[in-house]
Order: sequence, then structure tokens, then C-alpha cells
Amino acid sequence: MKDIIQEKLNQAVALLHEQNVDCWLTFVRETSQVHDPALDLILGFGVTWDSAFLCTRAGEKIAIVGRYDGDNVSKLGAYTQVLTYDQGIRATLREQMARINPASIGLNYSLSDTGSDGLTFGMYARLIQFLGDTAHAAHFVSADGIVRRLRERKSANEIKRIKDAIDKTEQVYEMLFDLPLVGMSEKQVHERAGEFVRHAGCDFGWERVNNPIVNAGPDSAIGHGIPSDLRFAQGQIAHFDMGLRYEGYCSDLQRVAYIRRDDEDGVPAEVMNAWDACWSALEAGRAALKAGATCWQVDAAARAELVRQGYPEYLHAYGHHVGRNVHDGGSVLGPRWERYGQLPNMAVEPNSVFAIELGVMVPGYGYIGIEENVLVTEAGAEYLSTPQKELIVM
Amino acid sequence: MKDIIQEKLNQAVALLHEQNVDCWLTFVRETSQVHDPALDLILGFGVTWDSAFLCTRAGEKIAIVGRYDGDNVSKLGAYTQVLTYDQGIRATLREQMARINPASIGLNYSLSDTGSDGLTFGMYARLIQFLGDTAHAAHFVSADGIVRRLRERKSANEIKRIKDAIDKTEQVYEMLFDLPLVGMSEKQVHERAGEFVRHAGCDFGWERVNNPIVNAGPDSAIGHGIPSDLRFAQGQIAHFDMGLRYEGYCSDLQRVAYIRRDDEDGVPAEVMNAWDACWSALEAGRAALKAGATCWQVDAAARAELVRQGYPEYLHAYGHHVGRNVHDGGSVLGPRWERYGQLPNMAVEPNSVFAIELGVMVPGYGYIGIEENVLVTEAGAEYLSTPQKELIVM
Repeated sequence: MKDIIQEKLNQAVALLHEQNVDCWLTFVRETSQVHDPALDLILGFGVTWDSAFLCTRAGEKIAIVGRYDGDNVSKLGAYTQVLTYDQGIRATLREQMARINPASIGLNYSLSDTGSDGLTFGMYARLIQFLGDTAHAAHFVSADGIVRRLRERKSANEIKRIKDAIDKTEQVYEMLFDLPLVGMSEKQVHERAGEFVRHAGCDFGWERVNNPIVNAGPDSAIGHGIPSDLRFAQGQIAHFDMGLRYEGYCSDLQRVAYIRRDDEDGVPAEVMNAWDACWSALEAGRAALKAGATCWQVDAAARAELVRQGYPEYLHAYGHHVGRNVHDGGSVLGPRWERYGQLPNMAVEPNSVFAIELGVMVPGYGYIGIEENVLVTEAGAEYLSTPQKELIVM
Repeated sequence: MKDIIQEKLNQAVALLHEQNVDCWLTFVRETSQVHDPALDLILGFGVTWDSAFLCTRAGEKIAIVGRYDGDNVSKLGAYTQVLTYDQGIRATLREQMARINPASIGLNYSLSDTGSDGLTFGMYARLIQFLGDTAHAAHFVSADGIVRRLRERKSANEIKRIKDAIDKTEQVYEMLFDLPLVGMSEKQVHERAGEFVRHAGCDFGWERVNNPIVNAGPDSAIGHGIPSDLRFAQGQIAHFDMGLRYEGYCSDLQRVAYIRRDDEDGVPAEVMNAWDACWSALEAGRAALKAGATCWQVDAAARAELVRQGYPEYLHAYGHHVGRNVHDGGSVLGPRWERYGQLPNMAVEPNSVFAIELGVMVPGYGYIGIEENVLVTEAGAEYLSTPQKELIVM
């Protein structure tokens, strides 16, 4: 992870130049309770007391941390200076800010992007307490233009790690689909998935309680539901949504199967048509996805194709970034709904990795959901996952 | 966990009366990236889009969440109303606030207490965007008086779960001390500890990378260090610091041993004296710890005893809360240093659970660190852990 942290810190300095900000300040405390997601990119572990991480346009990378966190930061080897304190950070922080004397100081807050919004209101107030009587407080700006791009523009190392996480997830899915699903409850399948994930040496990309999401047939709650006692049966759709973390990077994939009845030869037309429509819509979105595209237009392409096929719009976004987190923040390939704020208006960055997804509820059968992971280049979007091009029939 | 969430929500309503606040609003989004620790107390799982959790003095508990999170919140059975939306939370939030019409609205921000400081600066700005043109925005106050006490005053159910986590941790320590430490590296012992923790069915209470903290002898980094290639040897102190989570609640315990040289009969006097001084100081602090005590005075009692025994002051706080998190926020049994803000000036709440800890570096041998977990009542502080009353000799 050390190499990636160093890469990201160098990338941050370049982004300060590009975004015309003098200094980027990540200001955190007790990250085991409240975790600023920017720390994943520039530190990779937690700290306990008031801690300041400064990147400057001149290329300085300065960490000011409590004494007992100093050794870990020094050993990381990614900071040009590691300063420690015992009683309080105020004096050292003021000294450094006075020396750097930046005309603009980027802080981690954002109306729209969770991944750039790790500064708490209390920590902001604390910053004002420490610096309010200086000129610096008038120079605070949002760092979201920096943090968002730092997260979105993946390095080759990062892409490789995401690919590894995807491969692991596909292995776990193979084990899941080897289970004799019929008669098993959602809870039981969820439990077995836990064993497979541990066996694969992975962590869960979101909390375990609903990871994987397991949907047995038409009565299962669609969305982020916690597995229930509903049992898989013939003549139903089996749907899963799982995101895993491996060596610090994540995947997010859905897989779906039809469990054929003994008296059936093929798959019911309603199920097959829904599958075909979903796959066609997923590909329509992917065809619109390339560096420089406007995010909402990618979503609109997929959405329009699904509607053209006679199905209702999905009630979420077509795509979200995947990286250090499953929902990695940054721009959203989604409709211009209030809840997405400015995120759908952004341009797609090169070397970003998206989970693209959509689905259709088939009454009487269950939920068809597709989700794949793609790498975006100037030329387009290529699959990092092995796409599920056909409905699995069990 | 459902029963505890219901207990805590009822406790929150009582605290609104006690603290004279009309309404408490927890406002979050994408909690897999930025997690408000108050959610652990009133929900127990994550949500994806803008979500508002409202408790009112009249006893209403209202959740407004995105459609795909609604089912989980409804099934929890702890909220009197669960309202869902598709495109944005604004309209529903405004309707509910207009209906409740509170004279004061507590928000999760705090200068001093991380556990009460889960509202990000961006989410605060979003709240202003949604409610800024109403009278509500003038009624925002910090909810830290509510959130802190909600966390500190543990129920019988919570205390039982903490005790279970402590018992598990003591089992893991037994396995650790059965290892033939001499010749093993810190990293190797850390690796084996991982197996023992999984075997015990526990999670790590803070991130795995430095949990447990493993210190082999005098050259090991004291504090929050990540295990190194240093190897345990005879004539050294072996020190561990581990916090585990079991069924949602945590422990935090240090254990310490002296590895005798083949040619030694007993323990060197420097080591033994340091151990005796630490134990005596820990007990001096515990004698001062009871409901209603002022936090910094408890720390001062332990600190003074250690100095009286001829050792330097420890450079941290004597005690922190343990609960849903290892560092559970709230008041701190610590010195009135800048980094602790107002936390040392608070009164100790009844039924709170603290990790109490201190230590001494013994030159040439290593670090003696003691940490136990205690339950505070009106009468005093009783051990929940089985206190390590004597230095382990290996």
C-alpha cells in the first residue's frame, strides 16, 4: 500500500497546480469513530488525536500528529515532514501555516460528494478556534475538486488491485452458484457466502449484515435488504449483490439466475425478455461512457433503452465509482435528481472505474439485476469484470 | 441488537427532556464512506442516500430514508414512522419539520467529543440548502449533551455485551501467552493473534494493521505502532494492547509479561518496581472514579501516584469510554490539555464503562503498560475485566 500512498500524494500535488489551490489540508481526529475517506488515499491507516495532513503546491507533504501516531507515519515514508506533539496541535499547525502562507487552503467538504466531505462540523469549528485570528481562515475553500479527481483518476497500481478484488468476487460467486439453492433461506445463503469470502481471503466491501444482498424470488425486498427467512424455490429468480475488499480495493458485482421448474424446458418469456432488456440497457449506457462524457448523459442512454424496451426506469443511478470503497464517492452516472446534487453534471475522468448497474422486477418471479465493473479510457469503457452476458439457468 | 436500539431511542427521548431540547436530528448519507457514530446507537446499520433520523420530546421517532433503505429500517421496528423517497429528501424533511415545529433542533456536532461529531461540514451546508429559508435553521444547537450521555450511560444489555467482549479478549490473551514467544517477531505474533481472534468469533475493535499492538522489548515503538520484524528475546518485556468487538460492543485491554533469562531466578528490580508503580497508580485512579466525579481529577489521582513513585507522567489520558467503539468518545479521564478540549471537565456518568490505562518505559527492558475495563456506579468503579494484578513471568 505504501507505493500507492506515495503515488496519490504526488498526484495530489499535481492536482493542486491543475486546480489552482496552494495548499490542501486534511484535518481529522479519532478516525476509528469518524473516518475521513480522503485518508484512505493519503495515509492508509488511522490516527487518534487532532491530526493535520498538508500538501502544498511546492510539493511539501507535512503530517502533524499526536506523539503515539508519529512512528507509523514516519515509517510510511510518504511525508516530507512528520511533526508530533503531546498536549495540542495548535502551535505546530499555526507555525506551519504561517511558514507556508497559502493564498488558498482546500478543506475536505462538499455539498454533493461524500468522498470529499470528511471534515466534520466540529472539526471545522476547531480549525476556526485554532486559526480564526489569522488570515488563513479567510482562505478556506472546498478541496472537492482535488479530492474527487484524486479518487477518480486511478493509477495502474490501483486498477490492478481493483481487478484482483473483482477476480476474487467472481471466485466467490462460482462457489455460491455451486450451492443447491432450492430450499435454502436467504439467511443460509448469506451465511455460506461469508465462509466463501473468508476462504478467498477477502473482506466485505460494505457491512456484513447485507453483504451479499440475497434475493429469493418475488417476495424479497429489493434494494439494500438484509437477508430474510424466505427460501429459494423452483420457478424463481435468484439475485445477489456483493462487494468485496481485497488489499484495500473493492469490487461491486450483481449476479442473477433463474431456477427452472422440473416441468420447464426453458426460461419463461417474461423473465427472458426482462433479462434481454436489462443487458441491452447496460450496453447502451456503456456505449456512451468514455472520458469527457457528461455523467447524466451516460445514465440517460441506459435509462432510455430500458424504457424503449417497455420497462420502467430504474430508481437509482446507472453508475458509481469503485475503488477504496464500493461506493467510492465522486461523480455519479445518474439522473439530475436532487439527491445526487451536482454529481451528474460532472465530466467522466480518464482511468476511472465504475460499477454500472440496473434492473427490472419481474412480477411473480423476482428481481433481475445486472452489475459489472468497467475501466474508462478516452476510447470508451472496457469490462474489468467478466460480464454476465447470459442469464444463468439452474 | 434490535432490543438495544429500541432502548437507546427511548433513552434519547428521556434525554431530550433532561437536556431541554425539542428535537434531535441525525442527518447522514452514504455511511459506508463517512459514518456518524451516533447511528450505531439509533440504527445499527448503514444507509445510502440523504437520511434523517428525528427524535422528538413527544416521543416520536421518525426515519426519512431513500427507498432502498426503507425496508431495513421498517423491519427494525424501532421507529414510529419510516418515510421513503426516490428523488430527494427535501420535501419530506420540510414537511416533518413544519409539523413538529421544534423550538430547538439538536445536530451532531461537537468541538470536543468525536462521538457526537458525525455531521460533516458538507451535510450541514446541505441542511442549510434544504431548510435555510425556514425558521428551523435559527434553532440549530449542538446535540452533544444528548449524544454523549446516550453513549455514556450504558444499559444492562450493553454492559453485558461489553463484558462478553472482554471475556473473549481474555480468552485470546490466554492463547497468546501460550505461544513460545522467544524468537518470534512482532509481525508473527500479530499474525497468530489474528487466527485466535477469528477462532473466538470476534472482530477487531480498531483496524487490524495495529491490533493487537505488539511490543517486543525496549526498541519497539510505543504507542499505536504497527508490528515490526523485531523478535522477542529473553530478558525483555512483552507488551500487548488489543481491543475486540463482539456482537457490536468492544473491549480494550493491555497485558504485559517479563521473559526471564535462563540465568535469572526472578524479575529485575527495575522491571518489578515499574510494574508495582503502574499497578499502584492504576488503583489510585480507580479509587477516585465514581459517578459524579470530575474527569480530570480521576486522571490527576493516578498521575500523582505514578510521579510519587518516581516515574514520569504518562503522555495520554488515564481513561476513555468503551462501548460500541473501543475509543467510544464522550468524556475523558484526562489532563486539561488542549487536545482534550472540554472533555476532562465533565462529570462521570453512572453506568459508564471506561478503559483505564497507564504505563512506564523501563530502559533496556521495554514497556510496562496496564489497561483494564471498569464499570462506574455511584459507589465506585468495579472491574469488568479480570485485572492483571501481577506481572506475568514467562
